[in-house]
Amino acid sequence: MECLKIETQTVNEPVFITTPQDFRLPEPLQLDCGRILKDVNIRYETAGTLNADKSNAVLVNHALTGDAHVCGRHTPEDKKPGWWDEMIGPGKMVDTNKYFVICSNVIGGCSGSTGPQSIDPDTGKPYNMSFPVITVADMVRAQKQLIDHLGIEKLLAVLGGSMGGMQVLQWAVSYPEMMQAVIPIATACQYSPQNIAFDWVAREAIKADPNWKGGEYDAENVPARGLAAARMLAHITYLSEESISRKFGRSLQDKSDNYDYDFDFDFAVESYLQYQGRRFVERFDANSYFYITRSTDYFDLTANTGGDLAKAFEKVKAAFLVVSFSSDWLFPTSQSRRIVDALLTNGNEVSFCEIKSGYGHDAFLLEVDTLGRMVRDFLHYQQEAYSR
Amino acid sequence: MECLKIETQTVNEPVFITTPQDFRLPEPLQLDCGRILKDVNIRYETAGTLNADKSNAVLVNHALTGDAHVCGRHTPEDKKPGWWDEMIGPGKMVDTNKYFVICSNVIGGCSGSTGPQSIDPDTGKPYNMSFPVITVADMVRAQKQLIDHLGIEKLLAVLGGSMGGMQVLQWAVSYPEMMQAVIPIATACQYSPQNIAFDWVAREAIKADPNWKGGEYDAENVPARGLAAARMLAHITYLSEESISRKFGRSLQDKSDNYDYDFDFDFAVESYLQYQGRRFVERFDANSYFYITRSTDYFDLTANTGGDLAKAFEKVKAAFLVVSFSSDWLFPTSQSRRIVDALLTNGNEVSFCEIKSGYGHDAFLLEVDTLGRMVRDFLHYQQEAYSR
Repeated sequence: MECLKIETQTVNEPVFITTPQDFRLPEPLQLDCGRILKDVNIRYETAGTLNADKSNAVLVNHALTGDAHVCGRHTPEDKKPGWWDEMIGPGKMVDTNKYFVICSNVIGGCSGSTGPQSIDPDTGKPYNMSFPVITVADMVRAQKQLIDHLGIEKLLAVLGGSMGGMQVLQWAVSYPEMMQAVIPIATACQYSPQNIAFDWVAREAIKADPNWKGGEYDAENVPARGLAAARMLAHITYLSEESISRKFGRSLQDKSDNYDYDFDFDFAVESYLQYQGRRFVERFDANSYFYITRSTDYFDLTANTGGDLAKAFEKVKAAFLVVSFSSDWLFPTSQSRRIVDALLTNGNEVSFCEIKSGYGHDAFLLEVDTLGRMVRDFLHYQQEAYSR
Repeated sequence: MECLKIETQTVNEPVFITTPQDFRLPEPLQLDCGRILKDVNIRYETAGTLNADKSNAVLVNHALTGDAHVCGRHTPEDKKPGWWDEMIGPGKMVDTNKYFVICSNVIGGCSGSTGPQSIDPDTGKPYNMSFPVITVADMVRAQKQLIDHLGIEKLLAVLGGSMGGMQVLQWAVSYPEMMQAVIPIATACQYSPQNIAFDWVAREAIKADPNWKGGEYDAENVPARGLAAARMLAHITYLSEESISRKFGRSLQDKSDNYDYDFDFDFAVESYLQYQGRRFVERFDANSYFYITRSTDYFDLTANTGGDLAKAFEKVKAAFLVVSFSSDWLFPTSQSRRIVDALLTNGNEVSFCEIKSGYGHDAFLLEVDTLGRMVRDFLHYQQEAYSR
């Protein structure tokens, strides 16, 4: 148990503390690309207490640039809690007083798990772009060993949005006996060609940055401009036309009525994007961005079934709650419906909801009330249905 | 008259020849940004014959990266005709046997009209990024002098798609007496914040290219990578999810079933984008891309009317044919409807059609049959209605 409630001295409010942990895979990891990854570390966090019969474990998978820090704070002084703290914690929608929540950083990432920044044991130097290309199935394969390590034979649920949702679907396919329920949110069974195209351009922007140097940049001189451009592009796809219009419209940054007639940021939306890009560079590694985006490009559950998703889902046992958002154009509702249709074809238990929201893809992080209630009730029901 | 039909020696088929011409503005051009542009050249082409009472002139405005070469070929050997050759020419939808078609390259462009590549008469060196920021209204202001120069008091019609459509709308507002009809296609009365955001990222990608050098690159060493990334990004927005999926799906470039597990292009859509980016760099100037995109960012007919489009259209006299395409998400139908609503509020004559098409924004160049018939019949009707 890694979580404890303590009182801070400054604010009379309980601070929920979570602590990063590391698990080193006992054996090298065989990857889909054919290569073997040695000395694999998985950074993870847990919240809540695993009950005696180990039936209350909920695995949360993070999205593209997320990390293991899903909820709580690392220290009482931490200004920012985990990325889904509004959803998960004591008394929250995913109640850590009831559930034992696990979240781990994906391999290929840059937030503690083995990735391109890690030292290659064969050379004693960072992998950088010699790191093997990983797939979502590889991420899940590594994660599965963590769950084994924690002594959990069957998870109550696996949930996550976006690339987290891909991992959720992969879990249901790769280890059908290992969970009662899954909750794929704002995701798809295969990454769309439009999204592959956006990823390509994002990586091209990084390559165009002279600091990238084929991945051999030094920490003092990262390809900040290219990585920021990549992030800004992705960020636009996380919003909807409606949410951008509502949030910024054509407002000017300096609140004046007059254009600056130059190429610095003039519109509020430009300054916002620039800020998002800059912040991202502070927390994310450019090479890792290559690997993580590539894993989504390659994600296609139907790759070996000639496009037949029902066939790909053949062995799936989990009960599903599939959620999409009406203004999400990166993972539109049609893609969630495809998942639902295939499950229904197979006679699986599936609930589906398209949540009306103007927030675009980001809605899975923002519509906490609506989504949270749905997840809370579904987990509650599935806990009753849980059996070994 | 610049057009003649000749027979090629190799193919027994008439080749429609058009010839670039230059018009130098007699006076410096006052720009919206407050600066003055000296020695302004306008590159233009015409097709067909201006009739005796000069009542058959149709001005075509090109889109973002278009040019004056709208139809025909410059030489019988030319492999590629003008950009809207399927639409315009002898016996075509816009029939140059009936109409005198004019198309000019916008100022700020890089295809003959004065732009950042031009020599600044004050310094004797190319402007590069010292070129003044221009607006769509500036482009139209320059174009108006060309029309005056051609001795045309009233155009039969002004038509164009995308940024060409913005010019069309600007014409109707700036010079309401000067045309019988206008045809804005796949456009908007103001550029959306989402599109401003995409433009910002595109320019950031160019800035990230070390060859850009603040715009002071030499011709042998252009910022090819950054400009290509910018183009690829824009190109995605010209397509629809449907058209990308239909054209490429998740097909691999080498037609195999196996991923390459690397970061070179693996998917067909990646290779296609890369090709489009490379081709674009051969024909377009990076600095010009800054200026042209900025002019669209700044385009907002309602900037001086507090968002009231009907008020902005107050003096408009032209009859309108407004056309949008169902899968165009860069300039969605809702934006065309806004134009139509404002015109109806003012009691203007307006026809509107949303053409069902899966081609996205590019549909304005691809749906020649449907769009063409509509334009043909509208022009025919407007020619009868034409009066001084």
